Amino acid sequence: MNTLIVGSVAYDGIETIHGTVDRVLGGSATYASLAASFFGPVMLVGVVGEDFQEEHLLALKARGIDLSGLERREGRTFYWRGRYSPDFLSRTTLTTELNVFAHFEPVLPEEYRSAPFVFLANIAPQLQARVLEQVDSPHLVLADTMNLWIETAREELVDLLKRVNLLVLNDEEARQLTGEDNLIRAGRRLLTLGPARVIIKKGEHGAIAFSEDDYFVAPAYPLEQVVDPTGAGDSFAGALVGYLAAAETLTEGTLRRAILYATAVASLAVEDFGPNRLLSASPDEVQDRVETIRRLMAVES
Amino acid sequence: MNTLIVGSVAYDGIETIHGTVDRVLGGSATYASLAASFFGPVMLVGVVGEDFQEEHLLALKARGIDLSGLERREGRTFYWRGRYSPDFLSRTTLTTELNVFAHFEPVLPEEYRSAPFVFLANIAPQLQARVLEQVDSPHLVLADTMNLWIETAREELVDLLKRVNLLVLNDEEARQLTGEDNLIRAGRRLLTLGPARVIIKKGEHGAIAFSEDDYFVAPAYPLEQVVDPTGAGDSFAGALVGYLAAAETLTEGTLRRAILYATAVASLAVEDFGPNRLLSASPDEVQDRVETIRRLMAVES
Repeated sequence: MNTLIVGSVAYDGIETIHGTVDRVLGGSATYASLAASFFGPVMLVGVVGEDFQEEHLLALKARGIDLSGLERREGRTFYWRGRYSPDFLSRTTLTTELNVFAHFEPVLPEEYRSAPFVFLANIAPQLQARVLEQVDSPHLVLADTMNLWIETAREELVDLLKRVNLLVLNDEEARQLTGEDNLIRAGRRLLTLGPARVIIKKGEHGAIAFSEDDYFVAPAYPLEQVVDPTGAGDSFAGALVGYLAAAETLTEGTLRRAILYATAVASLAVEDFGPNRLLSASPDEVQDRVETIRRLMAVES
Repeated sequence: MNTLIVGSVAYDGIETIHGTVDRVLGGSATYASLAASFFGPVMLVGVVGEDFQEEHLLALKARGIDLSGLERREGRTFYWRGRYSPDFLSRTTLTTELNVFAHFEPVLPEEYRSAPFVFLANIAPQLQARVLEQVDSPHLVLADTMNLWIETAREELVDLLKRVNLLVLNDEEARQLTGEDNLIRAGRRLLTLGPARVIIKKGEHGAIAFSEDDYFVAPAYPLEQVVDPTGAGDSFAGALVGYLAAAETLTEGTLRRAILYATAVASLAVEDFGPNRLLSASPDEVQDRVETIRRLMAVES
């Protein structure tokens, strides 16, 4: 089934202990779409400027990503530049130029409106809501968010959550949104805000999935080196929704398997700068990592 | 089979957001012995002062812990007092009175020397080494350590590790001992120092077990409230060695199961002040938690 993904499409400048790159393809919708495209067709909604390069459009199209929802506007593409601490536990934003993104007003092409699986990747909750208003009756709505919106648009975010089936966010965001230090309590609290399921991403510590009746913990893929963590969370969520769309349903079983695939894809994403590894990785590499993860969490070895 | 445990026996003062207690039973050997005693007989090596109360001796004996290796010396018992931050991510030591522990010179009773399973709980590596010199040819030597010894007795610690089969330590200690931020690399590095297996404890994020050929990740038990984290790591390691001693062997399979039992026992330990819950919990409660952990990590739900 089709996956509709809305979010930012950007150019990034990234500084890590392993080097510096500039104007590489970035943005939440970019990472999420590339990740989801391992599992099936993707329809992307976003905006870019006149500086957005043909080669980047082609790279996305080559992965089965429909770009009829990617608006091209006068002006420059959203630009972000950041620097990661050597241990990758924190990052400093050096530049944020919203550019055309400042006037982003998502309008869905007619053929996008019946999308059964919708991922509202990390953008302002007001924009996420405007996308939801334009889809007919999706089978599953998945949403991500970030600290900025929790601080500046909490009311809109809480409003949006009532219409979200599956919320994916990181541990810091879960704590910030609920005021709970304890992640188990934070997860349970988030379930009361609307979503039937919540997944808390914990980076190198894996992820926890909560629902009324179930609780699942997945480890991270054991990486000895992270080159660039940009887009890891977007890739995780994109692969998750892509896998679910391919499975055509959301049960506890498919969700658990989807989390392993999401973990595998996110681990690939961080092995090189920008989306390089997502662009070069084969489905077999993803499958191999899923098998590794299964082995490292099997009690009966 | 018997488990020999050497470490500190103490009285603790503990301040957490849930309250304050003073002069409760504490120390690494105390927590480890109580945890190991869920699985079989324990022989404890330690020292206490004249103030050590009969009721505490009885509580330990009632759990099948042999105290013929617990020396009683003139003076007062080791006393520690600390305060935990509200999120339990850090703690401040308010008082450390070594008392009789300052002159601790472990001497093993004759019948302890043939112990097949030995746990060198957290004390100075010089003392841990002195215990090793007195045991015949143990089937398994497990050791714990702490930041203090990594800073002040690194050489002795590294020397000791050559004679340790299984090292158990927390994530901070693993990073500090190896200089590696990445825990996967830290674990691999530790394997080169002697131990055939290394377990890195990550608190609420579970534990990772490393060996030359295997890698296992276990989640923490999902606790909505921690009352007092004192002794969690000692309880984890004590339950681990206790389970392995009962299984009489160390294979990857028994180790993985042992880690689930260790996780279960550690989760009980932190639910009340001091070792209260370890003293009150039944083997059925431990088993129930192990079943819960198995369910929450099962990919096929």
